[in-house]
Amino acid sequence: MNQDRLSLTFGALADPTRRAILQRLTKGEKTVAELAKPFMNEMSAPAITKHLRVLVKAGLISKGRKAQWRPCKIEKEALKEVANWMDQYSQFWEESFDRLDESLKKMTMKKGNKNGRKK
Amino acid sequence: MNQDRLSLTFGALADPTRRAILQRLTKGEKTVAELAKPFMNEMSAPAITKHLRVLVKAGLISKGRKAQWRPCKIEKEALKEVANWMDQYSQFWEESFDRLDESLKKMTMKKGNKNGRKK
Repeated sequence: MNQDRLSLTFGALADPTRRAILQRLTKGEKTVAELAKPFMNEMSAPAITKHLRVLVKAGLISKGRKAQWRPCKIEKEALKEVANWMDQYSQFWEESFDRLDESLKKMTMKKGNKNGRKK
Repeated sequence: MNQDRLSLTFGALADPTRRAILQRLTKGEKTVAELAKPFMNEMSAPAITKHLRVLVKAGLISKGRKAQWRPCKIEKEALKEVANWMDQYSQFWEESFDRLDESLKKMTMKKGNKNGRKK
């Protein structure tokens, strides 16, 4: 797997546990212990730590450095890069809708011409 | 890597060659040979075939079955799923802007009250 930034981000998002961790952080900062809690029955602590490390490496989350605790939080930049990348495809969809619209118009016009044609 | 659909899609997007192939397909259907052309100097034909297989497996592209050729084309559904998944985060950004807006309003109100207080 290539290690450019966008590839790292997509790679990090290619796992349901990591996406679930990210989603939990949309509700605010959380300690590693808080984040790990819902997954403790399914996986080991080192497995969760590894997932967090992948998210940090991809720039999707960061760990703060407060005296008593190190809360994790979302870093929006990496997500924005994904959103920007996606944008080129939303444009593509809109274009294909436009094309469909144009085809329908042509079909309607043809139908109109046909109906208006003298027999 | 987990094999659920969204993970497969993100995994397939986690590579610059595969993203480049996908982007080339936004301009219309292309045969495997046409798609492979710009990458032939950098990688082997089997490597390109493997990338295409990953994209097909993730549902991002499909191969048609015409008599003379098998053109590849984008399948929009998988990309739309990514866009839908992203949506929850765009909402999150808007919310954080709203919160900032609210904090600024409160600060302005407090300042107003302070200035209006009798001494």
